[in-house]
Amino acid sequence: MTSKTTHQLGPQTIHTVWDRGIPPVLTINSGDTVVFRTLDASFGNAARRVQAGEQQGLKPEFAQLIADSAYPERPHSGMRGHPLTGPVFVRGAEAGDALIVEVVDIRSAPWGWTSCRPKGIGLLDAELAEQGGLTEQVWHYWDLRGGTHAPFGEKIRVPLAPFCGVMGLALAAEGPHVTSPPRQVGGNMDVRQLVKGSVLELPVEVEGALFSVGDVHAAQGDGEVCGTGIEMEADVTLRFSVRQQAEIQTPQLRTPRALDQHLDSAGWFATTGHAPDLMEAARIALRSMLRWLSKEHGLSIPDAYILSSACVDLKISQVVDAPNWTVSAFVPLRIFEE
Amino acid sequence: MTSKTTHQLGPQTIHTVWDRGIPPVLTINSGDTVVFRTLDASFGNAARRVQAGEQQGLKPEFAQLIADSAYPERPHSGMRGHPLTGPVFVRGAEAGDALIVEVVDIRSAPWGWTSCRPKGIGLLDAELAEQGGLTEQVWHYWDLRGGTHAPFGEKIRVPLAPFCGVMGLALAAEGPHVTSPPRQVGGNMDVRQLVKGSVLELPVEVEGALFSVGDVHAAQGDGEVCGTGIEMEADVTLRFSVRQQAEIQTPQLRTPRALDQHLDSAGWFATTGHAPDLMEAARIALRSMLRWLSKEHGLSIPDAYILSSACVDLKISQVVDAPNWTVSAFVPLRIFEE
Repeated sequence: MTSKTTHQLGPQTIHTVWDRGIPPVLTINSGDTVVFRTLDASFGNAARRVQAGEQQGLKPEFAQLIADSAYPERPHSGMRGHPLTGPVFVRGAEAGDALIVEVVDIRSAPWGWTSCRPKGIGLLDAELAEQGGLTEQVWHYWDLRGGTHAPFGEKIRVPLAPFCGVMGLALAAEGPHVTSPPRQVGGNMDVRQLVKGSVLELPVEVEGALFSVGDVHAAQGDGEVCGTGIEMEADVTLRFSVRQQAEIQTPQLRTPRALDQHLDSAGWFATTGHAPDLMEAARIALRSMLRWLSKEHGLSIPDAYILSSACVDLKISQVVDAPNWTVSAFVPLRIFEE
Repeated sequence: MTSKTTHQLGPQTIHTVWDRGIPPVLTINSGDTVVFRTLDASFGNAARRVQAGEQQGLKPEFAQLIADSAYPERPHSGMRGHPLTGPVFVRGAEAGDALIVEVVDIRSAPWGWTSCRPKGIGLLDAELAEQGGLTEQVWHYWDLRGGTHAPFGEKIRVPLAPFCGVMGLALAAEGPHVTSPPRQVGGNMDVRQLVKGSVLELPVEVEGALFSVGDVHAAQGDGEVCGTGIEMEADVTLRFSVRQQAEIQTPQLRTPRALDQHLDSAGWFATTGHAPDLMEAARIALRSMLRWLSKEHGLSIPDAYILSSACVDLKISQVVDAPNWTVSAFVPLRIFEE
């Protein structure tokens, strides 16, 4: 029997596309553990703009903390996606197997960021640019040193539950593939329930599986509606094994605990959207949520949008009551408690 | 000040379309409480087919219980939708107000049913008819006498959390409107979190609001994927008030407690779907869930489909990682515990 080993992978192994042709930076046995240092989704730009004095309103000591973590931007060319740490070759993994990834630990950075912009990728970017006050890119910096909660202004605290936004494998299809879309081999899935203690199973398409990880979020609502969660650097400890001939078609996971125990001690408020298209139903529900956060809690619409991305959950209430489907947007009322 | 009154409304007040022209069966003051007897979505057909001996495999004593609750089918004509109890005219409610509906209590029937069929309304009906073994309408009868859980076969128990599938108001638009789609005034929303203790706010479009309720489910997953939850008759106690000029655009709600405390004591298993369309992503996730329930727990595909409709939740994990969105299907592992 092979002894179990713990390996370390630093950000010097970053790659920014999925490509089976990228040589593995580490080869491990089934049962081994790897500690990955991951970069934030901005490649350090969020820190460098604070360092350059481009962000107003931060407390000096907090701004210094962020600036101190900045590193020089490195030149890059071609397709640029998420900075991913890897790929890791797992001995014995073959097409048709499942790679089992146990999330042993996620150690957060002391700060994180969320951002949205008028012509960005969020659910309501276009209309908020027209009439919601989203006129330029907005950055919010979160102080994560509290560990369990991050303050948002004076009166709101968002519970934290870090997870990896991206965990995935190389595709069988040759050549580079952009990192934005998640696929049947995983990738940028942004499934917020993949917290410490959960186990992810990914369908293997190539020999060695070729696993990479990145884009860790300190918190995120189901939907990630403004396009970013609470983005940060992290140290992620994962344990790997292989289940042969598992023949799973999509990524699947197990989580050992209550999903929302960090969120739901004070109940929830929810808005609903009803429309013949699920995306439009989600937009209606989110629009009403932003209006409520603005009216009841005095947030600007961009702030309400960023807060929603960090902690509002989109649930599909029904997909059977033709011709209108229902999406509900839930906010945990705990965030407003003292 | 008007004293608060509790009223009773029986199923003799059933109507089956939304229509502001239907005369109210009861007029109440803001602050009043109404106990509604609601019929099941089949208008008693589920009971009559047991009475007629059309269902195999039920224990005789349980079949007798169901048969005893059967009533003769009544003639009907024109549009037939959900049997709704009401409408209730609330004094003082005007267009632009919100009708506040507090769910005081829901008393379940001792049994319920779930059904799916090859050319029905469920998420996977078409493909399951082709290759999933869904060759004719399948009915499942649930014994709800346990109160907190309903058994599904010998090894599975589904936690119960009853809610009203339909709570809604008359539309401003004249004439009859079918009950299937939920709309901006509520209706067939199937938001499973509207359990006892929650408070629903509905946008009023006509004088008196004209509220009706029906289609109570003993349990349902977010999605109601096979087209029915655990359908049953019920006694529903609701308290009404009016918030003037609330100017809400869609139904919204508050729930005072943890959403899933009845479900998540043993963790969850989830499948994921990634596609450029949310509905297709939901189909992929549900397909994998049915496969898993069949492989790991020995269920037939139609049984897995019915079980999923009762307790699998569809979550929108992300709508921002173009071109693929992610829907995750979560099943509470508690249902498999002894």
